[in-house]
Amino acid sequence: MADHARGADLLVSSLLFNGVDTCFANPGTSEMHFVAALDERPEMRCVLGLFEGVVTGAADGYGRMTDRPAATLLHTGPGLANGLANLHNARRAHTPLLNIVGDHASTHLPFDAPLTTDIEGLARPMSDWVGRVGSAASVGTDTATALTQALSGAGRVSTLVLPADAAWGSPGAVAEMPLATPAPATQVSPDAIEEAARLLRSARRGLLLLGGKALRQVPLEIAQRIAVATGAGVMCEQTNARCEQGQGRHAPPRIPYMVDAAVAALAEFDVVILIGARAPVAFFQFPDLPNMVTASGARILPLADCDSDLPATLQALSDATGAAKATLHAPTRTPLPRAEGPLDFGTLPVAIVQAMPENAILCDEAISYSHALGQVAKHAPPHDLLQLTGGAIGIGPSLAVGAAIACPDRPVLNVQADGSALYTIQALWTQSRERLNVVTVILSNRKYQSLYSELARMGHHSPGKNARAMLDLSDPNVDWTGLARGLGVKATRVATAEDLSRAIRDAFLEMGPHLIEAQMADGT
Amino acid sequence: MADHARGADLLVSSLLFNGVDTCFANPGTSEMHFVAALDERPEMRCVLGLFEGVVTGAADGYGRMTDRPAATLLHTGPGLANGLANLHNARRAHTPLLNIVGDHASTHLPFDAPLTTDIEGLARPMSDWVGRVGSAASVGTDTATALTQALSGAGRVSTLVLPADAAWGSPGAVAEMPLATPAPATQVSPDAIEEAARLLRSARRGLLLLGGKALRQVPLEIAQRIAVATGAGVMCEQTNARCEQGQGRHAPPRIPYMVDAAVAALAEFDVVILIGARAPVAFFQFPDLPNMVTASGARILPLADCDSDLPATLQALSDATGAAKATLHAPTRTPLPRAEGPLDFGTLPVAIVQAMPENAILCDEAISYSHALGQVAKHAPPHDLLQLTGGAIGIGPSLAVGAAIACPDRPVLNVQADGSALYTIQALWTQSRERLNVVTVILSNRKYQSLYSELARMGHHSPGKNARAMLDLSDPNVDWTGLARGLGVKATRVATAEDLSRAIRDAFLEMGPHLIEAQMADGT
Repeated sequence: MADHARGADLLVSSLLFNGVDTCFANPGTSEMHFVAALDERPEMRCVLGLFEGVVTGAADGYGRMTDRPAATLLHTGPGLANGLANLHNARRAHTPLLNIVGDHASTHLPFDAPLTTDIEGLARPMSDWVGRVGSAASVGTDTATALTQALSGAGRVSTLVLPADAAWGSPGAVAEMPLATPAPATQVSPDAIEEAARLLRSARRGLLLLGGKALRQVPLEIAQRIAVATGAGVMCEQTNARCEQGQGRHAPPRIPYMVDAAVAALAEFDVVILIGARAPVAFFQFPDLPNMVTASGARILPLADCDSDLPATLQALSDATGAAKATLHAPTRTPLPRAEGPLDFGTLPVAIVQAMPENAILCDEAISYSHALGQVAKHAPPHDLLQLTGGAIGIGPSLAVGAAIACPDRPVLNVQADGSALYTIQALWTQSRERLNVVTVILSNRKYQSLYSELARMGHHSPGKNARAMLDLSDPNVDWTGLARGLGVKATRVATAEDLSRAIRDAFLEMGPHLIEAQMADGT
Repeated sequence: MADHARGADLLVSSLLFNGVDTCFANPGTSEMHFVAALDERPEMRCVLGLFEGVVTGAADGYGRMTDRPAATLLHTGPGLANGLANLHNARRAHTPLLNIVGDHASTHLPFDAPLTTDIEGLARPMSDWVGRVGSAASVGTDTATALTQALSGAGRVSTLVLPADAAWGSPGAVAEMPLATPAPATQVSPDAIEEAARLLRSARRGLLLLGGKALRQVPLEIAQRIAVATGAGVMCEQTNARCEQGQGRHAPPRIPYMVDAAVAALAEFDVVILIGARAPVAFFQFPDLPNMVTASGARILPLADCDSDLPATLQALSDATGAAKATLHAPTRTPLPRAEGPLDFGTLPVAIVQAMPENAILCDEAISYSHALGQVAKHAPPHDLLQLTGGAIGIGPSLAVGAAIACPDRPVLNVQADGSALYTIQALWTQSRERLNVVTVILSNRKYQSLYSELARMGHHSPGKNARAMLDLSDPNVDWTGLARGLGVKATRVATAEDLSRAIRDAFLEMGPHLIEAQMADGT
């Protein structure tokens, strides 16, 4: 093996050796040797985010679409902190992801220079694993250890702190490049499968609640067959990292966000089999509403967690229930009436779905409009749906960056609430820099609509000065087309369903990013 | 005392009772009872930030200018995480600041709903104190405890977690509203003063290194008198929370950022008396450069930390050195030649200084240009200088928001590097929403210049594809005028010193925020 001049060179070699060839980055002074090392290896694709939330959100999108980790390059504690919200989403999505966080030289830490922070303390709440490079000599093994974690199970957020002196120090000769050795997906025991089959047979009505990699086409079809054979229902979690859905696919309905609607949707199921999903709970608790949204007394069987081999689990359950013999009809497709007129909860999702290209990746940070969009998405051409998994808003534009870089031949459509979009709006610049085929539809209702709804639900129906000061976005109105052009993205504004459909189609005819400001009708 | 319907009402009463009447906010569902309670008390000024970095940066600017805490309202762990970078700066600035972070209801936390995070774990690295409201009944005492911390010493970052059930629960009758009882500034012992005076007398050359509230006019004048009496020098730290400087004021030079320049500036001092300052260290360590920038063997006396009564300390030292008798000349003022032509390190700061209005607040996130600006700022009319204290870039536009809200009658000028500006660009919207008298000068050089300098210093003189991918901002160029207008701020673009001076003057003639894109000459 070749000698490496510096620890940073060995780090880059280790990443490439382990198949990590994409690095989302926002560097600082303590990472300059890492930057220089990346500069020596043009086969690593380095993508700049102008803010770290873009970096981590993009790495999440990339990991969801490739099932492989991208690296991030973050600058000390504050750089990591800026990326934490989207790491929270990535962790909830079980995305494989490797953060490299630069730190002061070990010898400088005792001096508590202004940028000194407790990086591990910051990383831990949003990481599945946190480690620190010990020295230049251990860079290879430390990187392999961190990647082992990132790649284990369904995927993990792994954070490795790189002190500057480990980056600039000499690692000496490296005999053999260490390889990541991730734990394979776990297998569910035959006894557990048998128990699940028995429960499904004896249930008044059973439910297969799916999550994670059970939401790909093959396992979805097996699940549907089990449902036909046993009379069970199939649903998926309220938000999902990635779901292969659309016309001709067997994607199940989602548990609704609203607690009362969720309770109603689950009321008939006395047995709930969890396959890559977690027991369904209310997103927030409300006074006098339950924490769990399953029927009271329902038997919940955690058959397979997200780290399990979910296709094999479903196949085994299919075998145990004799589902292979079940006749599976192609999902029915009712043609949607054409959407016309002002944009509201009814027309908006239809206008989007009718304009979606084949094989798209749909990023859904539609927030207030997400439920309506989910209701009609089965009518869209086959696509992958990526959702906000952790509730940390401000991921859509960045998720789209990562998905587009992971899948350069696929169109990416980001349906994006306006309030959330402003959190990581810098992602538009990266879409332009990288010539990504992303179309962003901004749902411009000029307020935090979901919060106005919450206030009303509390009985606070006449928001006063201070409530409006905190929930209203109309003074001034954001000019989304100006904002997008300022960041190098072509932009247009529409106010009707017809114009929205046309604008989406036109945007995808032309390579590169586009933004469409969809002016929502008042009261939506 | 009046009964309060909910814990959230008691919280707002407690804040107002303790003199906290400004709340920078970005709320979410778990804070809706807090929002409703704020809505009942219009005497609380609620200011929305479209991203939490704006919220915390603005609270920092407010606290620096008023010496009183603003409250922030942040939504769960990810909302706090988004604000951490600027809390790091606030903590390093010793700014009094109270974060209120909403969390799930206590009864919902065991269910690990998607937004559940370790809020205390996230808060600790960037807070001086972290606590959690125990119940609706303890809201008053918990708020007073948190404010006691925020107001103690020079000022502290205090973070109080507010579970939703404490906000919506009934606190019962409150006999007496609890009052914050901050620790007063500590007094330095006469022995320590005597020791410092003795060291100054016996030194080859002594240095008074000032920080914190020693950088106000009265203590600065006392320090200068001590310097005249003892032959000592006076300097301040490399960055400072707030310094009253400009024509006729005795603000001292700053320790340079560059390690070699700092070492040279401090070489002659064999005694360094720290008065509100910390022992000066390199901002980053570099191979073969020292950690400390004081002269080797220099005696460093930590006379008074930032929590001390710094004016009293300086007065006592003045008495001990007989400095009252020293003749203090008004600082000399050499007229600056008029700046003309393209904008570079020479012309830019002069053009700014010559256009500065009286009594301004100058926010300096000029990064690569900060040193040059600092060199000529003594020629500017008297002003307060606020700097980037913790190295977490992305504070200028938000700091300006807070300073302008704290001091509505004073003009605020934010001199802002382009790369850093993009971190919290959403602050422009708040400037527009609140009609703030802020002028932002964007130093548009379309690259991370400071990082290119670092690469060159390492000997990496020919940046390749990947280095340029991570350090260059010119593809696409950000159109700052479009971006600003998109966020409701008037904007213009200039490329010469004459035009920059004129644009700054014109902007301050008109109320409300303005942005000036200063196109820097190539190579700067």
